[in-house]
Order: sequence, then C-alpha cells, then structure tokens
Amino acid sequence: MEKTKEKLEGLGRKVLKDVEKKENPSIEIPIRSLSNVMYDEKEKALRLGDKTSKRFFFNVAHAKKFTQTMMIAAFCKQLLGEKIHTSLRDMFYNLKRTFPNSNENTFDEQNESDPIIVDIEVALDTLREKLHLNADVRGRVVGQAKVVDREDVVDWSKLGSGGWAIPSNVEELKFKSVSADFILVIEKNAAFERLHEDRFWQKHKCILITTQGQAARGCRRLIQRLTEEYKLPVYVFCDSDPYGWYIYSVIKYGSMSLAHVSDMLGTPGAKYIGLTISDIHKFGLEKFTINTKDVDIKRAKDMLKYEWFQHPAWQKELNLLIKEKKKAELEALSGRGLKFMTDEYLPQKIKNKEFLP
Amino acid sequence: MEKTKEKLEGLGRKVLKDVEKKENPSIEIPIRSLSNVMYDEKEKALRLGDKTSKRFFFNVAHAKKFTQTMMIAAFCKQLLGEKIHTSLRDMFYNLKRTFPNSNENTFDEQNESDPIIVDIEVALDTLREKLHLNADVRGRVVGQAKVVDREDVVDWSKLGSGGWAIPSNVEELKFKSVSADFILVIEKNAAFERLHEDRFWQKHKCILITTQGQAARGCRRLIQRLTEEYKLPVYVFCDSDPYGWYIYSVIKYGSMSLAHVSDMLGTPGAKYIGLTISDIHKFGLEKFTINTKDVDIKRAKDMLKYEWFQHPAWQKELNLLIKEKKKAELEALSGRGLKFMTDEYLPQKIKNKEFLP
Repeated sequence: MEKTKEKLEGLGRKVLKDVEKKENPSIEIPIRSLSNVMYDEKEKALRLGDKTSKRFFFNVAHAKKFTQTMMIAAFCKQLLGEKIHTSLRDMFYNLKRTFPNSNENTFDEQNESDPIIVDIEVALDTLREKLHLNADVRGRVVGQAKVVDREDVVDWSKLGSGGWAIPSNVEELKFKSVSADFILVIEKNAAFERLHEDRFWQKHKCILITTQGQAARGCRRLIQRLTEEYKLPVYVFCDSDPYGWYIYSVIKYGSMSLAHVSDMLGTPGAKYIGLTISDIHKFGLEKFTINTKDVDIKRAKDMLKYEWFQHPAWQKELNLLIKEKKKAELEALSGRGLKFMTDEYLPQKIKNKEFLP
Repeated sequence: MEKTKEKLEGLGRKVLKDVEKKENPSIEIPIRSLSNVMYDEKEKALRLGDKTSKRFFFNVAHAKKFTQTMMIAAFCKQLLGEKIHTSLRDMFYNLKRTFPNSNENTFDEQNESDPIIVDIEVALDTLREKLHLNADVRGRVVGQAKVVDREDVVDWSKLGSGGWAIPSNVEELKFKSVSADFILVIEKNAAFERLHEDRFWQKHKCILITTQGQAARGCRRLIQRLTEEYKLPVYVFCDSDPYGWYIYSVIKYGSMSLAHVSDMLGTPGAKYIGLTISDIHKFGLEKFTINTKDVDIKRAKDMLKYEWFQHPAWQKELNLLIKEKKKAELEALSGRGLKFMTDEYLPQKIKNKEFLP
C-alpha cells in the first residue's frame, strides 16, 4: 500500500513542480489503443507498447480530463489513507459535482470516470485494486489451502457445499498454507459443484476455482498469485467453443483491453485441459454436441489469426470446429454419466498430460 | 430426502396401478399458466389455484411428454439414491438419447426438459432442489451465524473480505448458531462489500446477504429458512427503481412463474428498507439521480395495478417515480460520502423503523 501511495504522491509532486516552474502542468500516459498492444512471445503475454501521450492542464481539449485525472488520483490517495475500498460507480457518484461558478459537472456519466482509472493504472504501473477501487465480483473457490484475510483464517477445505466467494480485491490476502498440487479452473458453476460434491479436490489434492463465465479481475489475480507464490500448475477447463477458449486465453495471456496489466493478471503457465473438438470423438460425445452459430465460426476464424493461437494443436482445434460446425459444453460429459467427468475424463487427461498449450 | 423419495415412488406406483387395472396411465398436474396464479392476501404470497390437467400415456398429443415425465422422475429417484446433485443442463444431456427402433429423441432441446421439472415440482408439491436438481447459483453471505454443511462448520463471521458463496442447494444445510438480530438483503455486491468492510454486521448484530441482482433460488430459500427457523426480521435494500422493487417483491411474495413454490421460497414478513423516491429528497440525493427510461415508467404503471403493491406507501412511491421521472441507485448514497450508508442512512432507517410493507 505504501508503494501505491508513493506513486500517487509522485504524480502530484510532478504536477506541482510544473506549476512551480511556471510550466504547463502535464501528465504522461501510455497509449492504450489496439495499435499499441502487442503479443510478447517470450513472456507469453499481451503487452502495451511504448507509445505515450501527454495530457496538459492549459489546453482547451485536455483541461477537463486533466482535472478529472487529478481528482481521481486524489480520491484514491484518500481511500488509501482511510483504508477503505469502493467501487467504480460509488467513486463516480462521490466525485460528481458542479465546478464552482459554472454549469459544468466534474463528471456527467460513469463512462467518463472509468477510462481515467485505467489511465492512472497505466501511468503509475499499478492495479485498480491497489488504488482501492474494486471491480465486479464473480468466482468461487474450494480446496487444499488456507488463507488469511482481514485477520480471519479461511480454510478452503471446510466450506460445506458452498465455497469461498472470491472478493473483488485479493491484494491484501495472504496464503497461510497451500497443500494442493495443482489448480483446476472451471468455466461453469454446475461442473464446479459436481466436482466439489465428488470431493475431487480432496482425492486429487488440488484447488477448484469456478470463474462463472469470463474470469473477473479478482479471480484472475488470485490464480496468478497462487501460481507465482507456489509454482502450481494451472489447468483450465472450459466449453469446447470459441467463447470457452477465449476465457482460457484471457486467464493465460491477459486481454487486449487490459494489456497494461497482463503481468499482474495473466498466468502465462496455464494449460488447457479441455474440452476440445477432438475430445468429442475421443470420448464418444458425438450425440451431445451443439451446432455452431455463424458467430462461433467468425470468432474461430479470427482466433486462427491471433499470434497466441498459432500453436499447431490450437490451429487444429479451431479448424476442426470450422469444418465440423459442432461445439460441445462441459455438460456434454454428463451424457456419459454424471460421474464420468470426475472419475474418467479429468483423471485421464491429467495422468496422460493431455493439455493444449 | 426420504419424504421426496416417497413422493416419487408414489407417482410411480400410481402409474403402475393404472397399468395393472388396464387403464390408460395418467399423471395429474396442476396448471401453471397465469390464469391459475393468484395473490393470497392472507398469506401474502402468490399461489397456484386448483385447476389441474391430466397427462395420458395413450394419447398421441401426450405420449412423448408422459414418457419424458416418467424418465425425469426416474432420474431424480436415481439421484436421491446415489446421493448426488446435478444441474438441469447436465440432466438434459444425461437423458438425451434416441428411442429404440426410431429416429425420435427423448429430448431435443433443454427447453423440453426444464418445464417437466416444474411439472414434477408442482405435482409432488416439492422443490427442484429436493429432487437434487440444482438451479443457477448467485449470492454471498457474511455475519453473525454458523452453519453446518456436509459436516463442515462454516462461521459466517470469519470469512475475511470474501464471504460464503451460497450454494445452489441449501436443503441439507443446518444452522448451528444464529446470534443475529436481523437480516439485511442487499441487491448489489458493491454495497455489500462496503458494508462488509465497515463490519456493519458486527456493529449491528446482523447477517448480510447480497443477491447480486435478482435473487437465485438458493439465496431465497436461505433467507426463508433463516426467518422461519429463527424469526429474524428481513430488510431488503435495493435500487430505487421498478427493477429493484421487483427484486424485493420476489423475495417477499414469490414470482408469478414460480407461484407453486412461493411457500418454500418466499418470505412474507420481509420489509423494504430502501431506497425509495422519497429518500432522494429526505437524504439530499437530488444530484445523484438518473432519468428514468420508458421501460421504467411502463413497469411502474404495471406495478401500480399489482394486488401486492396496493399499500398506499407503495402507490405513493410508484406515482412519485412516474411523476418525477427520476430513479436512484444504492451507489447514489456515496454522493453523501462513502460511509454515509453505513453510518447514517441504514442506522437511521432501522432505528426509526422506516420500512415499506
């Protein structure tokens, strides 16, 4: 927290220095448009390039945004000082007011304040969560680990049929003990609940996390922290369709819109355990597929071109989907029996190390 | 569980008796269309009327549905026997196959199997969850209570910054100790996290539940069980708009589409703590409102006619929204300061018993 505070204070001091030197106060912010996003093959992550732009106070086109940026930075410093966290929407309401002697609002809509948070994240090389601004929340976890959070010890193996609701912000959480051998990340809650009921995490010494769709930031950060601090392998388990594969790629490489925080949210070592189109034939799921829609085919064709999907194994799966015009959900495994996923599919994949990169 | 098993066996025995008597096998199912849904003023709940229909085996229009009903009932009996739970989608895949000597599938799409679950719920006067079929999951809880679930004791006051992820099925959960004086149900996670961080549940001896939007069945059932078993008052805290008020009414009275399970999912004693349109003026939130859309006005006008919104206090709020064309979100309270909700708004409302019925 002290480090983030220093970064915010550094921003303030820089602007103050401009004022004292009677220069036009400015802030330098890396450009986040797609033209400045690139895939870093070595680090296996989407990254921002080094193009930046400057925001000036004495500039008719910049003045409002400059002021908004300073307001939000000051607000974050206050949050850190008071040790409270809040949401982007609460911040918007809290800062919304009318500039003195004018009819101009500080912010009219939340879509003015949201991008500025990202600007500050990028400019200070930090995370929104470290600025005490919480993102949307989603995701549940159970398994072989204990964490310490706000002085409570939470044992992820003693949560009944529920799980630990992953908070939007896991920056201050500490791991007390982790006895898992790997992490299984599951796109859908139904599969998570089935595996939880079968105590898969106990038999296979692992941690189960459901993202409940696209992984929220808190969930991605938790996966990354677990793998960084405990060198745990991560296996991602999604529907066999472009949307499921995209969920995997965001967990692994980060996303294009959040390329500046890939190093803090991405898990480059993650592997894909399934489902694949090849699985449909290998595990006799032909009767349980769904016909693709035009949007699936279009998406698969786009993904064929992504640098981070160039591995032959992925090119094969993408081409198979386009050719067969079939996709399959995790639930398709239930066609082979309700415990097929727990007792056969996953153990076989793990034992034979049948992962996609 | 034994009771549900008996009900399923009763259904089977009845059909078997028809066969033995050489009668056309049939199942009697209460009608669920809106014409058979009514508001029970005395019980404060939406209810099904007593119209029923019969589904026959030897009837070209009924034969497939009759067979599907028996297949699903048998599947549920198997789930109970094996003590496993699954989702509606997994069940669909598990039962999907081709009838012998035909090209006809047992089920083509999940929208064929879903309504049959509801038919069985109604016919047997039970809950999908008691049939071991889990619904969608959503919702988090923290506060002054301990529960026992699958032999684990989960202390809702020792969950760090996260919470207990409410499972989709709370039928087998037991309460170990509940020292809360009331339950505060919150529509949005952001407000829940703020209150949780301020340890509102500790200062005010309560349980905090966020529904994260429309309350999932597991969440509604948990609220109902807590109030039934511990006589706890329930205060519901939603956005001041027709959608927020509808979320409240579903928690309290049940929904029209699930009128047959209102007695198991509804909490007739629930009260509405806010936000209201009157609050906007009372708490100086005028600068933090949002203009209503046409759909809000239309919805409010519909709600004016609902029997369960006839109380003058609700008629006043609905009419105010229509007149002022303004609505307000929970986050609007942050306009008055990030701790205004925790330190002023909620304590004042609770102290003065300012609730809507």
